[in-house]
Amino acid sequence: MNGAESLVATLVGQGVDICFANPGTSEMHFLAALGNNPKMRSVLCLFEGVATGAADGWYRMKDTPASTLLHLGPGLANGLANIHNAKRASSGMINVVGEHSVSHLKYDPPLTSDIEGLARPLSHWVRRAESSNTIAWDAAQAVAKASGHPGQIATLILPGDTSWQQVDAAPASLPTRVQARKAPSAERIEHVARVLRSGEPALIVLANKATRGAALEKAGRVAAATGALLGSQFFTARIERGAGRVPLARIPYAVAQATAFLRDFRHIITVETREPVAFFAYPDKPSLLKAEGTLVHPLVEADENSELAFDMLLQALGASHTAAVLQQRIETAVPTGALNPASIAHALAAALPEHCIVVDESLTTGRESMSLTMGARPHDLINNMGGSIGYATPVATGAALACPDRRVFCMVGDGSAMYTIQSLWTQAREGLNVTTIIFANNSYAILKAEYANMGAGAPNERALSMIDIDKPRIDWLAMAKSMGVPSVAVETAEGFHKALIDSTRETGPCLIEVRL
Amino acid sequence: MNGAESLVATLVGQGVDICFANPGTSEMHFLAALGNNPKMRSVLCLFEGVATGAADGWYRMKDTPASTLLHLGPGLANGLANIHNAKRASSGMINVVGEHSVSHLKYDPPLTSDIEGLARPLSHWVRRAESSNTIAWDAAQAVAKASGHPGQIATLILPGDTSWQQVDAAPASLPTRVQARKAPSAERIEHVARVLRSGEPALIVLANKATRGAALEKAGRVAAATGALLGSQFFTARIERGAGRVPLARIPYAVAQATAFLRDFRHIITVETREPVAFFAYPDKPSLLKAEGTLVHPLVEADENSELAFDMLLQALGASHTAAVLQQRIETAVPTGALNPASIAHALAAALPEHCIVVDESLTTGRESMSLTMGARPHDLINNMGGSIGYATPVATGAALACPDRRVFCMVGDGSAMYTIQSLWTQAREGLNVTTIIFANNSYAILKAEYANMGAGAPNERALSMIDIDKPRIDWLAMAKSMGVPSVAVETAEGFHKALIDSTRETGPCLIEVRL
Repeated sequence: MNGAESLVATLVGQGVDICFANPGTSEMHFLAALGNNPKMRSVLCLFEGVATGAADGWYRMKDTPASTLLHLGPGLANGLANIHNAKRASSGMINVVGEHSVSHLKYDPPLTSDIEGLARPLSHWVRRAESSNTIAWDAAQAVAKASGHPGQIATLILPGDTSWQQVDAAPASLPTRVQARKAPSAERIEHVARVLRSGEPALIVLANKATRGAALEKAGRVAAATGALLGSQFFTARIERGAGRVPLARIPYAVAQATAFLRDFRHIITVETREPVAFFAYPDKPSLLKAEGTLVHPLVEADENSELAFDMLLQALGASHTAAVLQQRIETAVPTGALNPASIAHALAAALPEHCIVVDESLTTGRESMSLTMGARPHDLINNMGGSIGYATPVATGAALACPDRRVFCMVGDGSAMYTIQSLWTQAREGLNVTTIIFANNSYAILKAEYANMGAGAPNERALSMIDIDKPRIDWLAMAKSMGVPSVAVETAEGFHKALIDSTRETGPCLIEVRL
Repeated sequence: MNGAESLVATLVGQGVDICFANPGTSEMHFLAALGNNPKMRSVLCLFEGVATGAADGWYRMKDTPASTLLHLGPGLANGLANIHNAKRASSGMINVVGEHSVSHLKYDPPLTSDIEGLARPLSHWVRRAESSNTIAWDAAQAVAKASGHPGQIATLILPGDTSWQQVDAAPASLPTRVQARKAPSAERIEHVARVLRSGEPALIVLANKATRGAALEKAGRVAAATGALLGSQFFTARIERGAGRVPLARIPYAVAQATAFLRDFRHIITVETREPVAFFAYPDKPSLLKAEGTLVHPLVEADENSELAFDMLLQALGASHTAAVLQQRIETAVPTGALNPASIAHALAAALPEHCIVVDESLTTGRESMSLTMGARPHDLINNMGGSIGYATPVATGAALACPDRRVFCMVGDGSAMYTIQSLWTQAREGLNVTTIIFANNSYAILKAEYANMGAGAPNERALSMIDIDKPRIDWLAMAKSMGVPSVAVETAEGFHKALIDSTRETGPCLIEVRL
């Protein structure tokens, strides 16, 4: 067994059984080890940003990290933007980054770079595997780090010689995964119970693991018992929503709407998140969105156990037997006529099948209208926590691999889709059940609004030409065809609804161009 | 005038009049300033790797840096792979990276990252512009750094408030560009003259500014006077070659061929480069390619003046009146029949028009056969110095903008093309004279050879599936169409030749799929 085989065997042994890979020469032994280990699934990606984004999507649905294979510093660099997004979403991930062998590095060959330097700003843990004998320990440590709560970014640098040398003496034992979440402080629980009992208007902002499963349901019981409103940040890693789930009010994105939304709350209680902050700074707008005088109370810190916190809180409130108010199913009529944010949301609400997954990067089209899908059939909603564009199509790819029996709807603006469009190829190759919805407004439309928000005035023709992407218009049907994905264009709300329904009838990927 | 306007005005004032941009919200004032300054050309790119690669291509042809506009840390990250390639090619570049305003940063909003940390591993100079008053100084300093010899990567971080605040007091003076190249040491010249006079077999390896213009011509006279062979590394930033130019022998890529090529030289003399090193390390192959006993003599260091060195050397050799031996024009018959590396090279040799630019990232197809184009009409050949895949289509984009009256032929493998395929859109948008040649072998074919070179044995089916990219095959005609580029597929050598000729008849981009 060589170092690469030890690495792959350890990953698999520790429960990491998928690798999103874009290999190069220095990783040939790792590739051979992937090929020789039937327990490891390898998924080829044509660009590294697809690999890291797919690993993020995998984690969001599985709560367990995937691995990636990246080719030296530049390969890692290509994956960093979606590593940033994953880090902000608390997704665990193990990046294996190929590297020259030690003896070769001193000659500074062309692909040499400071891999640790590139990795550290966006990794929680970075290690260079120095020997084939100890790489099993390194790999298990990477898995342990990535699997913690919250998930972490672990980057393991794999020199060629570590990869190809034989293992003489494997470690006698390996680090173990500790997934226990910390208990929240009883004092904080008591304090928040007092706040909630006061009857003053309170918003409980949920995030990360608190927006789904038992934690969400128990949060719903707290809300029902106290009259507090349950909300989420505008972007959340994953929310279980729709009919039968505890509904969350979404804090708006735009500063003016967000401050208006928050104005009347005397208390903001945070769960695995912090108080709401504007996404960007604007010359004359605040960074913090709460009203003056609003008090912020942390209930659950990022590394603590939300479900346990709500159990304790319900007990403190004497409300253990209160039932949560669940979202009712809202039957939405199939919309007809013009495509606009509302008709698009109605078409989605009517078409989304039970237990589907929605990945949303529709910066302009979906921003204001997703509340219209609250009463859709139960589904998971995934959003971009890091703000780096080009996250949706890779995350949808990883989510579809994680949940092969659930269809993924990937809502993405045309501008955003172009960053990591290579995802379509992996979706075709793996036959993934992803419906990619391109909102084709031929513009970085969000920037037109942001230009004004920034106080930069009205863009002149030359500035506008840097915002519009209509010369040439991207031919989305040709783009889909080029990577083997069937596609259709729609120009009406009923056409969009039909295309959504049609996409669920067969397995495999498809693309819907929504012409706006 | 605000900080952004001061920045753009300073860039233009210092001779940097093009900006390859992928803007976001935090850069709206910079976008406005670009739009308001008619002396600055803004080129929109749909992915940051296209922007940085295009800036590299611009520098290669102009010897003067371009600027880029990137959106915070992740935007920079997306551009890093081609920054790595540019850095290795000694291309100067000024990256303007948007950032949150100071007052906003402390709240750690989603897009926050350690931009300095991401920039430093691949930048020579990094600065955060702290005030609208001093940003003109920062910008001029960035231009000075980027414009040095060799060119450098300058990264200027632009916080929103620096951008939008008014300039109260501009700097009284600005740093000046110093482009003077250092004179080589007379002692080294004397030493190399002695070596060359010995009559022992010598190879002079030229790089960077020495592979073109007067420096190349004078190197040719040294070679003619001494019998030394002139050569280049396998990858060189830019070579003026073809009929009428001083020919350079290319050190092969593969370790076995490279060591065989170098075996008989007693001396290797380096000019703006170092002794030949293997691109990758292999378990049983050397890193240094020279034979045991071969002596390496640095003649010109990276920051020195090659032309002056050859003047001094010719004087020391008493050979100031020796003429260089120039490459003869070799009329190549139009090849017919099957497409293979030789027939492809012959088609190129027959078709390349005078003063065209060839950007080569044909890792498998072009590796062994480019010597067959030595006698083509005079042209420039650009290669990838950094080894990060996805450099060719962006570099071709920048080269075409730099030289609007010269056609650019971008030779790229199908696997490589997919990393930064968004370049096609910018080429269509700007009407650039780029002929993209996709060598479609539906495989990362180079890795099949490297798998064996690495001693990893024969890949099994699972490993092979991570090297072949044929499921699905990429439809290159559809890909070109999707981004507004006309295209044609060829399956014979004569068809390829005709397509090359046809592509020169009209302005604007086109794509040729070479089906292998």
